[in-house]
Amino acid sequence: MLIRYGYEMSFSVAQPTLMVCLLDAHREQSRLLRYETPMLTSPAIPSTTYTDLYGNTVRRFFAPAGDFTISSDAVIEDSGLPEPIFEEAREAPLDQLPNEVLVYLLGSRYCETDKLSEIAWSLFGSTPRGWGRVQAICDFVCGHLTFGYQYARPTRTAFEAYEERVGVCRDFAHLAVALCRCMNIPARYANGFLGDIGVPPDPAPMDYNAWFEVYLDGRWMTFDARHNIPRIGRITVARGRDATDIPLAHSFGPHVLKTFRVWTEEIDASVLQDLKRRTA
Amino acid sequence: MLIRYGYEMSFSVAQPTLMVCLLDAHREQSRLLRYETPMLTSPAIPSTTYTDLYGNTVRRFFAPAGDFTISSDAVIEDSGLPEPIFEEAREAPLDQLPNEVLVYLLGSRYCETDKLSEIAWSLFGSTPRGWGRVQAICDFVCGHLTFGYQYARPTRTAFEAYEERVGVCRDFAHLAVALCRCMNIPARYANGFLGDIGVPPDPAPMDYNAWFEVYLDGRWMTFDARHNIPRIGRITVARGRDATDIPLAHSFGPHVLKTFRVWTEEIDASVLQDLKRRTA
Amino acid sequence: MLIRYGYEMSFSVAQPTLMVCLLDAHREQSRLLRYETPMLTSPAIPSTTYTDLYGNTVRRFFAPAGDFTISSDAVIEDSGLPEPIFEEAREAPLDQLPNEVLVYLLGSRYCETDKLSEIAWSLFGSTPRGWGRVQAICDFVCGHLTFGYQYARPTRTAFEAYEERVGVCRDFAHLAVALCRCMNIPARYANGFLGDIGVPPDPAPMDYNAWFEVYLDGRWMTFDARHNIPRIGRITVARGRDATDIPLAHSFGPHVLKTFRVWTEEIDASVLQDLKRRTA
Amino acid sequence: MLIRYGYEMSFSVAQPTLMVCLLDAHREQSRLLRYETPMLTSPAIPSTTYTDLYGNTVRRFFAPAGDFTISSDAVIEDSGLPEPIFEEAREAPLDQLPNEVLVYLLGSRYCETDKLSEIAWSLFGSTPRGWGRVQAICDFVCGHLTFGYQYARPTRTAFEAYEERVGVCRDFAHLAVALCRCMNIPARYANGFLGDIGVPPDPAPMDYNAWFEVYLDGRWMTFDARHNIPRIGRITVARGRDATDIPLAHSFGPHVLKTFRVWTEEIDASVLQDLKRRTA
Repeated sequence: MLIRYGYEMSFSVAQPTLMVCLLDAHREQSRLLRYETPMLTSPAIPSTTYTDLYGNTVRRFFAPAGDFTISSDAVIEDSGLPEPIFEEAREAPLDQLPNEVLVYLLGSRYCETDKLSEIAWSLFGSTPRGWGRVQAICDFVCGHLTFGYQYARPTRTAFEAYEERVGVCRDFAHLAVALCRCMNIPARYANGFLGDIGVPPDPAPMDYNAWFEVYLDGRWMTFDARHNIPRIGRITVARGRDATDIPLAHSFGPHVLKTFRVWTEEIDASVLQDLKRRTA
Repeated sequence: MLIRYGYEMSFSVAQPTLMVCLLDAHREQSRLLRYETPMLTSPAIPSTTYTDLYGNTVRRFFAPAGDFTISSDAVIEDSGLPEPIFEEAREAPLDQLPNEVLVYLLGSRYCETDKLSEIAWSLFGSTPRGWGRVQAICDFVCGHLTFGYQYARPTRTAFEAYEERVGVCRDFAHLAVALCRCMNIPARYANGFLGDIGVPPDPAPMDYNAWFEVYLDGRWMTFDARHNIPRIGRITVARGRDATDIPLAHSFGPHVLKTFRVWTEEIDASVLQDLKRRTA
Repeated sequence: MLIRYGYEMSFSVAQPTLMVCLLDAHREQSRLLRYETPMLTSPAIPSTTYTDLYGNTVRRFFAPAGDFTISSDAVIEDSGLPEPIFEEAREAPLDQLPNEVLVYLLGSRYCETDKLSEIAWSLFGSTPRGWGRVQAICDFVCGHLTFGYQYARPTRTAFEAYEERVGVCRDFAHLAVALCRCMNIPARYANGFLGDIGVPPDPAPMDYNAWFEVYLDGRWMTFDARHNIPRIGRITVARGRDATDIPLAHSFGPHVLKTFRVWTEEIDASVLQDLKRRTA
Repeated sequence: MLIRYGYEMSFSVAQPTLMVCLLDAHREQSRLLRYETPMLTSPAIPSTTYTDLYGNTVRRFFAPAGDFTISSDAVIEDSGLPEPIFEEAREAPLDQLPNEVLVYLLGSRYCETDKLSEIAWSLFGSTPRGWGRVQAICDFVCGHLTFGYQYARPTRTAFEAYEERVGVCRDFAHLAVALCRCMNIPARYANGFLGDIGVPPDPAPMDYNAWFEVYLDGRWMTFDARHNIPRIGRITVARGRDATDIPLAHSFGPHVLKTFRVWTEEIDASVLQDLKRRTA
């Protein structure tokens, strides 16, 4: 299956402003890319990329004063299959976790493990370890929080989401991540493109989503506490300790977001040929 | 000047527990070491070290059930001079900051830049940029917070410290770090050994301290919002985004801290000879 | 398409010996895994993993004296399509290369860029830049070297391969990597599983291969100077500056390799079900 | 003791050329800096810095066509004492080496461990392990090679130096590094400023030098196979697997080095005051 995805964002800044973006498909999926424009900017300015502490590709540029637009368009090959379920996946004994993984057991800006530890153990202490425990956490989070864009608040933490019982996909992910860490299951926050492929169209469509990953059976496995079902065509952009680390766009100084458009949809091969022909 | 420093900590854990410690002098000071025991454990168990995301050396071990003691003793060469003041040190223009430094402008578990940004700009927006601005932040934090061990609370954040107006050295550092980041000055949390060398003995002595570093003139410079004067013989152990990242000792599962002893004192060469002779 | 792949290696060491192995599918492909045994050892011993400088997962263990076997078996989902050709892919202008990529322009143990630079420029200086130039290098290497297992020599460098005109897949990759770097195209050595899927059975079958990657259009793209045609089902294990960095198995002290078996073959879903059932 | 050090290099390039330099004192010594100009360029152009795989600060710039000069001047605090000798320092048992250290046991461009292993074991297999073995390697290298600038050849490897019995400080370091690695002692190549402080003036003075470090007693310790005596005032710039990784200046494309001046000398406090006054 071919999936076309991309974005167009417009900002306005009062003065030249350093910005970083995490919006390209994670480079580990490079081999599946069939088409990708470079990031286009209007007005045209240079940008550079670097790899951050967590292995993500970050785009960095100095936005000129005034209005500014960035965009990209790409096509990726996908199996078209729903994400697999590994019910037998085990937690590693703690003493066998790789060193690199331990940081994903610690607290972070939006995941206050210190405040949620007792709650986590009382809720999940008797669930089966491994995949089943993570699924139990997803089920809990999915039931405990009510989803709604009107509830979005960028400073909301996992503990606040737990108490307020509302949130957007970011809050679902933060709460699930924090609860996993409390249970000594390494967990990291992830985001990327996820369209309504193979599911009924969402009344509140949003092709950019947050989800999370846990470390089971010696590798990172994907979970999604908001949708809480296996999905087709998830395209990871970035991963971090929480949302702090992987902003879609972050400016060092104020900016106004004027437009934000994202697309993720199945296409057929002729569309890919067209795209290639146009840019050749 | 020779400084002897070290620690002895005893824990009790109910079952075998994975632990990590950051207690060795930061390896960047290796060239100044004159003597160092390996970490001793009682009962004797193996431990390994690794380098974390922030460049610190972390010791990792699997503490057996029951009582457990770790200790180390070391001697380091020091200039014996108070820390220099670089009043002319400049902030880099944001677009010239190295990529690696940008993470130290983001929020973190105990440093909610999102909540403190307006406060920071109203307090420090008109101070001179560079060293002077960081000093103004230290002066503010040192005056705004009242120090006291009775105020220690491990979950306290920078914003909470700002509101509660009390704290320990960790809170002083967190608030200063958060305010610097709000002003777009990269700042990181640090801790280590700091004894009463060249200063009147502290009525509340504590040879283990938290402070912070900011990125000026292309390098990291040390500030200490609690003591707020240049000190002699600061021995850095670790640095991170905040205290989350560099616990003296962290167990993945509950532990009881039974004793914690730290020493940092000037010695003369004969003591060093004695130490060497005893362990040869 | 489902591909089953795996390995079984037996060693003999005279005394307990530290070993590292790079034999697991690269973790960036985790999402495509459908089944994976942990590494099994006989006799059973503990092993740990870590991530090396180049982002590979390395398995580390202390092999006991005597005979020792390691093995693993896995199934991965693959598109079943031949690798795409991106004839339009461009080299980045040098001043726009990410910092992280520059190391892949330097010389390394088996890729003496200093000795091959003039040769490279005289051969490829007038070829079209980008994909075409890399393809020209592959065509040259593929024609210049004669393949044969009897020519294997672990100390052979790219320059020596150029002069001797013989080699195994490792030498093809080293020479192509060195020539790309001479032309200022970042190139890294890679290895992994590659079976005869969609190609006539090889008279000299070997399901473990070396190839290389170059940095074009902002991402790493795969080339294979030995086979020099797009292949199906390449499973990357590791990447590095050259073969030094990514040994299948390396012992710190002598070892004798007694058996080495590798498999890579298309399977159907029922085989996967069988494998899962057996280990559940 | 205050040491003033710095450099001035002039290049000529025919067309705009990407360059990287490793010439700043290693940032781990930041705390000892008392004065440092930024890198000055003539004509003035922007430069950026980044941290490489080995923890060094690399300066990167795009040199304009024509003549081009870079320079810097700095003052650092030093204990003024000769480097300590740790005769009791032990090699870690191999299975206790940190993961990060293992790469410094592998071969590299100029250190062919595969070719030197038998030689190393025949020469040093019966020497005492630890500090004594490394010292034996230094003694051997220092005696085996004849030093002379007329012998400089940038492509010379450790094995070639062993056979040719001549070299410059770089060759002394490469041979010692390769021999240590053969003996399973982690070793890395280092370079930096080293003036004739506390030693008779060198008839062939050169204030920029290569040396090496080995991992003993859980930290990196400095050895210098060329001078082979403890020195005063060594200022490390960079470290790597060998000289490939840490060029003073490397251009991606040809350059002509027109002048290269380095200084390293003890100064007194009044000179420091003068320098500061002039740039304030």
